Amino acid sequence: MLIEGVPVIKAGIIGATGYAGYELVKILTRHQEVSIQFAASRSHAGQNMSEQFPGGPDVPLIKPEVAPLDQVDVVFLCLPHGAAANTAASALEAGARVIDLSADFRLKDAVSYKEWYGLEHPAPWLLPEAVYGLTEVSRDMLPEARLVANPGCYPTSILLALQPVMAACSADAGPIIADSKSGVSGAGRSPRLHTHFVEVADNLSPYNVGQSHRHLPEIEQGLTLWMRNPPSVIFSPHLLPVPRGLLSTIYVPIAEGWSEDALRSRYDESYRSEQFVHVLDPGSQATLAHVNFSNNCYIGLTLAEGILIITSAIDNLVKGAAGQAVQNMNVMFGRPESTGLIP
Amino acid sequence: MLIEGVPVIKAGIIGATGYAGYELVKILTRHQEVSIQFAASRSHAGQNMSEQFPGGPDVPLIKPEVAPLDQVDVVFLCLPHGAAANTAASALEAGARVIDLSADFRLKDAVSYKEWYGLEHPAPWLLPEAVYGLTEVSRDMLPEARLVANPGCYPTSILLALQPVMAACSADAGPIIADSKSGVSGAGRSPRLHTHFVEVADNLSPYNVGQSHRHLPEIEQGLTLWMRNPPSVIFSPHLLPVPRGLLSTIYVPIAEGWSEDALRSRYDESYRSEQFVHVLDPGSQATLAHVNFSNNCYIGLTLAEGILIITSAIDNLVKGAAGQAVQNMNVMFGRPESTGLIP
Amino acid sequence: MLIEGVPVIKAGIIGATGYAGYELVKILTRHQEVSIQFAASRSHAGQNMSEQFPGGPDVPLIKPEVAPLDQVDVVFLCLPHGAAANTAASALEAGARVIDLSADFRLKDAVSYKEWYGLEHPAPWLLPEAVYGLTEVSRDMLPEARLVANPGCYPTSILLALQPVMAACSADAGPIIADSKSGVSGAGRSPRLHTHFVEVADNLSPYNVGQSHRHLPEIEQGLTLWMRNPPSVIFSPHLLPVPRGLLSTIYVPIAEGWSEDALRSRYDESYRSEQFVHVLDPGSQATLAHVNFSNNCYIGLTLAEGILIITSAIDNLVKGAAGQAVQNMNVMFGRPESTGLIP
Amino acid sequence: MLIEGVPVIKAGIIGATGYAGYELVKILTRHQEVSIQFAASRSHAGQNMSEQFPGGPDVPLIKPEVAPLDQVDVVFLCLPHGAAANTAASALEAGARVIDLSADFRLKDAVSYKEWYGLEHPAPWLLPEAVYGLTEVSRDMLPEARLVANPGCYPTSILLALQPVMAACSADAGPIIADSKSGVSGAGRSPRLHTHFVEVADNLSPYNVGQSHRHLPEIEQGLTLWMRNPPSVIFSPHLLPVPRGLLSTIYVPIAEGWSEDALRSRYDESYRSEQFVHVLDPGSQATLAHVNFSNNCYIGLTLAEGILIITSAIDNLVKGAAGQAVQNMNVMFGRPESTGLIP
Repeated sequence: MLIEGVPVIKAGIIGATGYAGYELVKILTRHQEVSIQFAASRSHAGQNMSEQFPGGPDVPLIKPEVAPLDQVDVVFLCLPHGAAANTAASALEAGARVIDLSADFRLKDAVSYKEWYGLEHPAPWLLPEAVYGLTEVSRDMLPEARLVANPGCYPTSILLALQPVMAACSADAGPIIADSKSGVSGAGRSPRLHTHFVEVADNLSPYNVGQSHRHLPEIEQGLTLWMRNPPSVIFSPHLLPVPRGLLSTIYVPIAEGWSEDALRSRYDESYRSEQFVHVLDPGSQATLAHVNFSNNCYIGLTLAEGILIITSAIDNLVKGAAGQAVQNMNVMFGRPESTGLIP
Repeated sequence: MLIEGVPVIKAGIIGATGYAGYELVKILTRHQEVSIQFAASRSHAGQNMSEQFPGGPDVPLIKPEVAPLDQVDVVFLCLPHGAAANTAASALEAGARVIDLSADFRLKDAVSYKEWYGLEHPAPWLLPEAVYGLTEVSRDMLPEARLVANPGCYPTSILLALQPVMAACSADAGPIIADSKSGVSGAGRSPRLHTHFVEVADNLSPYNVGQSHRHLPEIEQGLTLWMRNPPSVIFSPHLLPVPRGLLSTIYVPIAEGWSEDALRSRYDESYRSEQFVHVLDPGSQATLAHVNFSNNCYIGLTLAEGILIITSAIDNLVKGAAGQAVQNMNVMFGRPESTGLIP
Repeated sequence: MLIEGVPVIKAGIIGATGYAGYELVKILTRHQEVSIQFAASRSHAGQNMSEQFPGGPDVPLIKPEVAPLDQVDVVFLCLPHGAAANTAASALEAGARVIDLSADFRLKDAVSYKEWYGLEHPAPWLLPEAVYGLTEVSRDMLPEARLVANPGCYPTSILLALQPVMAACSADAGPIIADSKSGVSGAGRSPRLHTHFVEVADNLSPYNVGQSHRHLPEIEQGLTLWMRNPPSVIFSPHLLPVPRGLLSTIYVPIAEGWSEDALRSRYDESYRSEQFVHVLDPGSQATLAHVNFSNNCYIGLTLAEGILIITSAIDNLVKGAAGQAVQNMNVMFGRPESTGLIP
Repeated sequence: MLIEGVPVIKAGIIGATGYAGYELVKILTRHQEVSIQFAASRSHAGQNMSEQFPGGPDVPLIKPEVAPLDQVDVVFLCLPHGAAANTAASALEAGARVIDLSADFRLKDAVSYKEWYGLEHPAPWLLPEAVYGLTEVSRDMLPEARLVANPGCYPTSILLALQPVMAACSADAGPIIADSKSGVSGAGRSPRLHTHFVEVADNLSPYNVGQSHRHLPEIEQGLTLWMRNPPSVIFSPHLLPVPRGLLSTIYVPIAEGWSEDALRSRYDESYRSEQFVHVLDPGSQATLAHVNFSNNCYIGLTLAEGILIITSAIDNLVKGAAGQAVQNMNVMFGRPESTGLIP
């Protein structure tokens, strides 16, 4: 539905044939206030989206090099880390605003970036202005933002689950544990042995347990928004035999004196007016079925043995990637936040 | 392979048409030192196993009431809790030894049984002699046992993972957390909405989180074998969209002074001579692919932030039920422990 | 988007907690010209849709008996066969139009109904006026229809595939063969052993092969629309280990003289102006990925050995049930046919 | 169980890290009369099987070039077509017998090979002596065979289903139609987009429909064993979202005068004394659950409209590859045919 007198948002997508890129094109295609100006894909330029994705939208794919960056209001980057930063710089120079779904602008610190990603940050001068686009948290900064770093899927599920409880967290009672389980689309569309159907089906695989998963510094950086010295985080991702969906079961040591009701009240306050974050009734837990194909995050809460057990579910491709990117765009351009996201 | 001069073990199965019962019949059918004397099923008496399980063994099903308990050496009970105890008593009276796959003899305490299962224990006088059949732990008691309580699938995966580390566990640094994920066969064969294909597929469901799951007292009772006042346990089961397999990711607070190497040495000592428990190399994690269709338990170890993260995988129907039952039988009857279990 | 001056369509749903009913409520919830007046469910009255379907719409469920049939423009019946006909009669009497997703009004002949469904038709006087709602075929009759029989999922996939080719079909060169594969939601939501996750996963089961599947007379009746004496049909349904989606691979003996190009032209003519039926390019075949979660039907064509091989895919819950019901409603009430169906 | 005085069969495997190779190593590891002398893998030489396959057997992998072909009784080739023929020639020269699981020796005609596989046959002089190893059909030729061409998985399921009916087949009533559905392991272990979990899950994909699938000439060649001018065959393979298992639904026009009973008698006669081929009772159909993880073939029969509808199921990796290879080896070396295959 077009608002009279307000022009549509002209958007471009670079990296349109990964799973996040495809999800984004689908959402933008049905978004009534967006006009897709171009969709680019290095590997499939010259084809149509519908050749890559059966039943997908009829959108031609161009080479990234010829993308008319100066003719759009916003560019979405669905590129691997390292590749996004330079394109972001070019797009900003051309006058477009940028929503980057890669990891390139998520960490505020170029040194940390080098440590975790193994390369010099290609555009460190842009780091200070990049807004970390966890919409519910960063909403106020988005209308002025030129460059938005769209959060990772794991951090989205974990940070939304943790924000209300950080004030009640016992900093010295041991680490926060995030036991996360993700669908396979989170591992990307490039064929690899570990995404081969036969390797994944009927299986469940923990990976990078207790180790240097790149999402860990993103999570820890997020916690410092709410607590000066947050507890350390143990992050254990698991690969689930499902195409999409992400569930984090999170264990937070709670300071003395907090009841489950009191904790629950904090969540209700934080999310009462949110359209996409839903706190479940006592005894109910978040499942993938609550969230798949939607931009929602569902949260279940249980206090036991001094630990708040949080189950937090999102669709990794929607709230964990393309949906949140559009939610951010809506706020950046003054549209109702759910436009195009509630089908 | 028959050992000359040693008669085969005559076995009966009651409750043969659940998933554990079927797995047991399959294993016993290929076990060269066992002769199945009867397989009983209340709901399917008069049929053949192969009618209930396509491609399954050609074994007739009789009514439990007419099972000739006095003509077998051992009876396996694959019955719901509450229903097993009386049959166990009858079988013992008839002179058979009993391996009970239900929960009826797992808790040593009839009061606790009533609390968790909501009924008076039907045969409390048998509780003292029942041997908890976690084979690797109870091996010495099995040759003399008349009555074996076969462990639950969740406790098997968790207790095997915890036994070597209990000496290093910090009792006052918070609870042990067991985040477990199980295939659907663990929920039984009776059709229920929560086992309907459409409800399970593409989903992941936590259940009974932080609450009164009946496996919790079994786990806590197990820990007292190794530690006078063990830490409390938080147990979070999840239903996985796979037919079989069980993975527990377990978080244990470790006392100061222990390195990952030192912890790993304890596991190596405990399990070096075990045929079915395998400790993985550093950096490797247990997956369902390691264990499905076998009696193995694979264990991965990682120390991070003062927490030992253990991944422990079993096939819930084999090491978590029928396989361990046969392993127990082998020890009870003086056979090599892996007979019939290494195909 | 409301059209100025045109009132919304007031709709009621009876049988809202089966899979088709739930899909219908989801579609109608986002349909901008429909207002749901009530959703009824015998088994779950008093609950909310979101209790039955995690993340589902916030719609209260009432008893069918108290449904205000006289206050709606249209009633959708998602009931088992036999139960729908009487409710349809009541709704018509109360002044509502009826779209029946059951089988009760699909066969024009009460004798045939009794033969296939084993009961006297409860409202045979309504059979003559019932319009068989395969939208692309019956479109012209819908604006005046009071009672629409929504087609079955299998017949929808098969009849849309066959309509253009019937003129080229060789009537005496043997039967048409429809080898169909359906997702499990087509088997209903009531838990049964054959819909248990463990029985379905990793499996593929033909059923009712060459026999009296109730969809066969519906298919054969459909063919008589286009051919006086159509060939007989062999219909072989298979249960697929997927939640949704239906693919029919259909083999049609072709009369001499027809090339693949000439046959393809007939399909192009038939469906060129259709929004939901898509004929694929030569060499491409329909897959579930083309259609799932949409109201589309994709059709692939290959001529070999005098046989036209047609692959025809739909989502059994959308084009095969709720989506086509809404498509029919749109035509009945003069709305653009795709309203609410292209998200 | 070793037979006294008979030496074990010394076996080597080349191409051990594909899915068929791995299945073969698993079977041979538990085969009591076989000693694995070597397992070779070009891509993973230097590793152990258990590194490639979690929980897999502890077998070191060597380079194919250094495989001691002269020290084994039999070499199994699990290589791509084109690569196997030369290795077969070398192995034969070194004095080993060869069971080739590739397609290189399945077609008797080098011209046809070139047409379908696009290359000159590398060792055409060996074609005349190669025995097509569909065990139930070629049993008598195996004891003397030096070189066995192990059949493809699709042809195995189809030819076993067709052999008994060919005498009743109406040659001029149109083609035989084989609508086959295969698990993903049939597509090999090399990661490709079409075997990516996200592309396969929840999907069903027909491919090569009515076209030049390489298994077609193998099927047609097989039919000439039983009928001078067999009808043409339409072969429609579909990719199923399961790791393993293969079901063919086959439609055979039957000559006048045959009843279902008479046809069924032919199957019973053909397969009554077979250990691995099972003809189901009237009204029952073969499913993947009947056969997975076994060397069995199950066959269901239904006569309708002059068409015999056959459902034929095998495990593509066992009876469709490694299991049949071992079955052939057992016959070649005078062992009971099921040794190592009935666990």
